[in-house]
Amino acid sequence: MKVLVINAGSSSLKYQLYDMKDESVLAAGRVERIGMDTAILTHEPTGKAEVREVSEILDHTTAIRKVLGLLVHKEHGVLDSIADIEAVGHRVVHGGESFRESAIVTPEVKQEIKRLFDLAPLHNPAHMMGIQAVESNLPDVPQAVVFDTAFHQTMDRNVYLYPIPLALYRRHKIRKYGFHGTSHMYVSRQAAAFLGRPIEEMKIVTCHIGNGASVTAVKGGRSVDTSMGMTPLEGLMMGTRSGDLDPAVVPFAMGKEDLTIGEVSSMLNKHSGLLAISGMGDMREVQDAMENGDANAKLAFEMYEYRLRKYIGAYAAAMNGLDAIVFTAGVGENSWLLRARTCLNLSYLGVELDPEANLVRSKEARRISTANSKIDVLVVPTNEELVIARDTYELVKK
Amino acid sequence: MKVLVINAGSSSLKYQLYDMKDESVLAAGRVERIGMDTAILTHEPTGKAEVREVSEILDHTTAIRKVLGLLVHKEHGVLDSIADIEAVGHRVVHGGESFRESAIVTPEVKQEIKRLFDLAPLHNPAHMMGIQAVESNLPDVPQAVVFDTAFHQTMDRNVYLYPIPLALYRRHKIRKYGFHGTSHMYVSRQAAAFLGRPIEEMKIVTCHIGNGASVTAVKGGRSVDTSMGMTPLEGLMMGTRSGDLDPAVVPFAMGKEDLTIGEVSSMLNKHSGLLAISGMGDMREVQDAMENGDANAKLAFEMYEYRLRKYIGAYAAAMNGLDAIVFTAGVGENSWLLRARTCLNLSYLGVELDPEANLVRSKEARRISTANSKIDVLVVPTNEELVIARDTYELVKK
Repeated sequence: MKVLVINAGSSSLKYQLYDMKDESVLAAGRVERIGMDTAILTHEPTGKAEVREVSEILDHTTAIRKVLGLLVHKEHGVLDSIADIEAVGHRVVHGGESFRESAIVTPEVKQEIKRLFDLAPLHNPAHMMGIQAVESNLPDVPQAVVFDTAFHQTMDRNVYLYPIPLALYRRHKIRKYGFHGTSHMYVSRQAAAFLGRPIEEMKIVTCHIGNGASVTAVKGGRSVDTSMGMTPLEGLMMGTRSGDLDPAVVPFAMGKEDLTIGEVSSMLNKHSGLLAISGMGDMREVQDAMENGDANAKLAFEMYEYRLRKYIGAYAAAMNGLDAIVFTAGVGENSWLLRARTCLNLSYLGVELDPEANLVRSKEARRISTANSKIDVLVVPTNEELVIARDTYELVKK
Repeated sequence: MKVLVINAGSSSLKYQLYDMKDESVLAAGRVERIGMDTAILTHEPTGKAEVREVSEILDHTTAIRKVLGLLVHKEHGVLDSIADIEAVGHRVVHGGESFRESAIVTPEVKQEIKRLFDLAPLHNPAHMMGIQAVESNLPDVPQAVVFDTAFHQTMDRNVYLYPIPLALYRRHKIRKYGFHGTSHMYVSRQAAAFLGRPIEEMKIVTCHIGNGASVTAVKGGRSVDTSMGMTPLEGLMMGTRSGDLDPAVVPFAMGKEDLTIGEVSSMLNKHSGLLAISGMGDMREVQDAMENGDANAKLAFEMYEYRLRKYIGAYAAAMNGLDAIVFTAGVGENSWLLRARTCLNLSYLGVELDPEANLVRSKEARRISTANSKIDVLVVPTNEELVIARDTYELVKK
């Protein structure tokens, strides 16, 4: 079965086409600047040359039509017929409390995703456009939705509730949801498999550190706590997001700087984090600047590492123990320096990093702790698209 | 030397009179409902009967005059003459970045405390009224100020800065300050003395758990991190304060419930925490209700304990190790259940509680961990007034 995986944003759309026979990627690509007359479609068929087209793409339906055209294109295509696509899987950021696992798209499921627009106003409406665009182009193909929040629906009530009036939970569903769930689930399972240990018996902290970043406590294979909250703002310091903060700073800053609700949200999400301290929102730039003696870059890095390390410590306490720490996503997979600094000050837990193993660059899961380390430290490349393809395949073949 | 210690609130004033010869308390008491014609003065002279007077007390100057009158009262007094009071020490909540230690009150110091009204609008103006009331009554007596924030001024820049635009720090001094510093300093030193170990070599987490609550990482005798922030709202779940929260919840709730800046601040400070979840803001009530099967009280207790435990774990990571955990203040000194539950899930650190020692009630510092415990767990009654008296005495006798 061929499964098309879609990640639709408000003006972009990423895709990967899987052959589930061997889970190989037949093609990948993205459409950017949807809504403009200079939209860009980048198509990467496996084993063939990359294609880049600039044209008018005014909506997601057109974007999908162009992608499908390229997938069966004589020269750039990888399929004989569009009919070979037997299922489509979508990434959906927010599944609220309704979705504990992936689901086949039905009218009811669409209704529920719409009901959640409020909690993810930037993401869920875009995902819905993606679903509708596929419906228009492939009306007979079953679709599935895979949620960033679903893996975290196992959190206990005393973990996901905030200590604020319960009416806010009842009326507006204000609670901790957590995100990056697909990634945390995938890398925790990969880690257990790599170590040859049953995940049911393990306590793992997974660190998904990309431009957005979150940490999850995975106990017995279940998410028991995670650093992101009702929104992806809570938790770690990120590229442009503040993460944790005295909540009183929000109204205080609004009053002092005469900011609206929208302006303060924008400040905390887009103008904070690494960017606010160093002037750079990307960890690679920050590290380069730090090596060149930039004091603010060094400060930003130290804040970032320190806040990550405290979460690892907190989640060891949450689970009363720790067997493995897993680093994943852009920064987690690539920044040996962040991993080294973080682990250096976790020696009280018995963490002992292997400095050489930590320097190795690879696309494979690997151990970076020594044989003597009481806690295994791993780098596990994440693959959210594969999880979406697998879940979609499992749901559709039923 | 006799030292009068004052803790002035906006409509209240607490006092203790110390004889520094042996640090004994000669008298203690409080004035409540200042500003009303039915203000209440409660005076407790050591070794004599308590006195309670209801009368019109419209301002702090009158309150101090009445207190001084009782201190030299023929029947209820403990001094021959007001002239025996050689120094007055005040608790001041916010010392900002200006005060790293206690100070003698001068015009400049008063000016600086006023400049900080903005950061502690509920507290510093009341403290200033207390200082001025003493000036009016005892114009020739030197006064000192002891700050809740001072002990935490040793935090590093990467700890006290928030990952938000640096202009907010430069313009409005938005940063982490921390509070309860006098208590964290006192109990950490008491703990080291109790254990007979040099504090310079120790890593201690002090848990000041009262109606307000904060945790501090004390490394080598210095505060390196603390859970309260720019205001006392950040950190632990408290009696009526939320503590940590997705910062995005603040603007979201404001929008959904049409709340002003003042209303959302009031909600988070006065209507959250234990109160929001259980309907009770006092831990004793919550525990009683929990024992009687109240599900929301149980939930509130679990949230409270879980959040405290995560801070202890985070600060072990912050210091890369932990030698001792100290519980203090109302709940910390009295709730054996909170201590037991917290420590139960810290066994990964080598914490082993002695259940019998944990049940002992006492006003003395005591160890509640077993001899085998890798980490010493202590209960140390706090005494902020004594620290204020000592600091005042040291500053004045110079």
